[in-house]
Amino acid sequence: MVMKRIRIQELGEQIQSEVLLKGWVHKIKNFSQFAFVLLRDKTGIVQLVLDDEEMIKGLKLEMAVEVEGKVVVNKTTPEGVEIQVKNMRTVGKTYYDLLPFSINQRQMNAALETQLDHRSISLRRPNKRAVFKVQEEIVESFRNYLRGLGFSEIHTPKIVASGTEGGSEVFTVNYFDRRAFLAQSPQFYKQMMVGAGFEAVFEIGHAYRAELHNTWRHLNEYVSLDIEIGFIENEEELMDLEEGFIKYLFKHLQETCSRELKMLGKDLADINEIPRIPLSEVQQILLDGYDKKSPVGNIDAEGEILLSQYIKEKYKSDFVFITKYPAAKRPMYTMPDDKGEGMTKSFDLIYKGLEITTGGQRIHDYQMLKENIIKFGSNPEDFDFYLETFKYGMPPHGGFAIGLERLTMKILDLENIREATLFPRDLNRITP
Amino acid sequence: MVMKRIRIQELGEQIQSEVLLKGWVHKIKNFSQFAFVLLRDKTGIVQLVLDDEEMIKGLKLEMAVEVEGKVVVNKTTPEGVEIQVKNMRTVGKTYYDLLPFSINQRQMNAALETQLDHRSISLRRPNKRAVFKVQEEIVESFRNYLRGLGFSEIHTPKIVASGTEGGSEVFTVNYFDRRAFLAQSPQFYKQMMVGAGFEAVFEIGHAYRAELHNTWRHLNEYVSLDIEIGFIENEEELMDLEEGFIKYLFKHLQETCSRELKMLGKDLADINEIPRIPLSEVQQILLDGYDKKSPVGNIDAEGEILLSQYIKEKYKSDFVFITKYPAAKRPMYTMPDDKGEGMTKSFDLIYKGLEITTGGQRIHDYQMLKENIIKFGSNPEDFDFYLETFKYGMPPHGGFAIGLERLTMKILDLENIREATLFPRDLNRITP
Repeated sequence: MVMKRIRIQELGEQIQSEVLLKGWVHKIKNFSQFAFVLLRDKTGIVQLVLDDEEMIKGLKLEMAVEVEGKVVVNKTTPEGVEIQVKNMRTVGKTYYDLLPFSINQRQMNAALETQLDHRSISLRRPNKRAVFKVQEEIVESFRNYLRGLGFSEIHTPKIVASGTEGGSEVFTVNYFDRRAFLAQSPQFYKQMMVGAGFEAVFEIGHAYRAELHNTWRHLNEYVSLDIEIGFIENEEELMDLEEGFIKYLFKHLQETCSRELKMLGKDLADINEIPRIPLSEVQQILLDGYDKKSPVGNIDAEGEILLSQYIKEKYKSDFVFITKYPAAKRPMYTMPDDKGEGMTKSFDLIYKGLEITTGGQRIHDYQMLKENIIKFGSNPEDFDFYLETFKYGMPPHGGFAIGLERLTMKILDLENIREATLFPRDLNRITP
Repeated sequence: MVMKRIRIQELGEQIQSEVLLKGWVHKIKNFSQFAFVLLRDKTGIVQLVLDDEEMIKGLKLEMAVEVEGKVVVNKTTPEGVEIQVKNMRTVGKTYYDLLPFSINQRQMNAALETQLDHRSISLRRPNKRAVFKVQEEIVESFRNYLRGLGFSEIHTPKIVASGTEGGSEVFTVNYFDRRAFLAQSPQFYKQMMVGAGFEAVFEIGHAYRAELHNTWRHLNEYVSLDIEIGFIENEEELMDLEEGFIKYLFKHLQETCSRELKMLGKDLADINEIPRIPLSEVQQILLDGYDKKSPVGNIDAEGEILLSQYIKEKYKSDFVFITKYPAAKRPMYTMPDDKGEGMTKSFDLIYKGLEITTGGQRIHDYQMLKENIIKFGSNPEDFDFYLETFKYGMPPHGGFAIGLERLTMKILDLENIREATLFPRDLNRITP
């Protein structure tokens, strides 16, 4: 075959032409003398009309084929065209008796765990794959937005010598004759790169949490969209930056994912101003309005859901920043607030009842950071590699991180974060 | 300060204006009544003229400062402008007696290991940081090129249940109560995503090799630029794709990194056609021309260097594809060649004496792949999660991977791969 292959999406421009298509057999309606076959490729699905008995006999769902035929108008098909097949060749044979679940029916009738067990099969459903087109465009818009503002993309190590956040929830790696850890976040490294003169950096990379939670919103390996920026005045600038990104993102998705959003039944509205409310006020709102008590210095998962209901009603916003968390509940590098006693210049972003971001201004003074490490019960010597940067003129700085799978899940109103992950890793799953 | 900060690069458009600059004190020439200070930010270096004695007294190299002043023309400075300082404020104090090495001298006089020990300080040198601007644009052009061709960007797990390449050089992870591994490559996952209907995918992510080599060209954690594409005819298409990317890349770097390339003394020429030579011929060339014997089914590091000399002289090319490696020397998933006995549809790309890519067409038939796994002495059941994809119509496919740090190193003629890595991980180093 010397013809150039074209994609199903492009067929509308090829009426009456002979074309070469490649894809998978999605559906077969066999009328013995002829058959209607739906062919699926990355970009869409089109109807083939076959009248060669040999070809029809050899058909099996999901075989990979190459098809030569003529594009003709047929207004009764979803694409408005169909292919009169001249030639069809199997290029990828099948070796199964039964599919693990239906790929071509409206309903899938398979539990999520079953879908994940057969991930490369479940993703053949266009609506399952559509989630990852949206995810790809989230990443693309994150990069575009930040590069446009002069940020540098960095790649920092995931094998590290000490836990980042001080917690015990780290995976250990057997690194030659030593013990190392998988990075819980690029926190230290992105700060160091601000100090190294990159000033404004972002990273799109894996982060690892050895959490024992096996819930709809936890993964043990996830993609973190990380930002850090120097020479800031305060944490409001960081929230401005994130709000700017969210607005940019929603416009970008409207422009690049209209087909996928339609397939998934989502209609994304533009984002307006995102309210910013101190934690103490949030706790009061929950108590007054919902009789909901919150843990000291935080709100819990139920509180996040109730708060989002309140914000949606009052401000018509799906997003809300919670600001000014107490120092005791934030990491040791968090900048204290100048005003509120024991408070910090930190924030979370809650989206549709789920925390998707933690961020804040960091301590940039060497002496102050060292003292804070001691105050938190750690030994500054364990952080020498990190602290060194602060001895040589570290500017005021801060940043935040967005969980990619959480953001994807909430934009598309998925029920489980695993649906927004190609190959999730959790307490029970490291395959496929 | 309510003025908007501007970058040093933008000063040429601000002659006679009052501006706010932020950056680090790069150099101090103190004449007691006044001082010339070089201020460095992410984008460049500019001369400040200070005449306030208090300000001058407090100056220290590398402190982070905010500066208000007037932009005036001074043809004797590299930028053609200087700043008459009205106000200067220290925003990042210093806590050191001596810098670990010079940041502002032409010569650095520090061994690479010393530079890496103090990574966030050595990167303050503009020429050290320039390497990573080039690296960032390599990544950007890789994405742009592939997205333009309809590829999807994917993120696959780095915590995996079995070694990918069958070798023993894997790091183990203590994953809750189990043993897991760090992925040596996304090989299986990118193939599975081709089969899942993404058809053409790429990934920019970390790969891990527990190799005991500690050489100028090995890292134990590196960034792999991975590609996999379905519905191909043969491996020539894959080399066409890589050649197309290399040409695109060099144009992109000329356009986006002219300042950095000049700083690093590099002048990138356009790329012409890349020769493709079967391994057996390459071995004969080395034997005939250089009296160099090669190991069975491969060439060694010295052979790569000699071959590149030969190719440069004969074809004026820094790149050469070596094709048709024997099956015994390639992974079990490599597609046999239809012609040469025991040969495969595989290739390496050698650039300036170093292998930067391994690639090839893969076996797509389930039965054939299963038999090949057995032939290689493995148990197909250990690869069930991977093999499953091949039961449901796997199209002919192939791909390749480029080592990001190797490509960066060779484009810039760096001597050690660690210079092209922000925080290298090797046999001896997991900090900073």
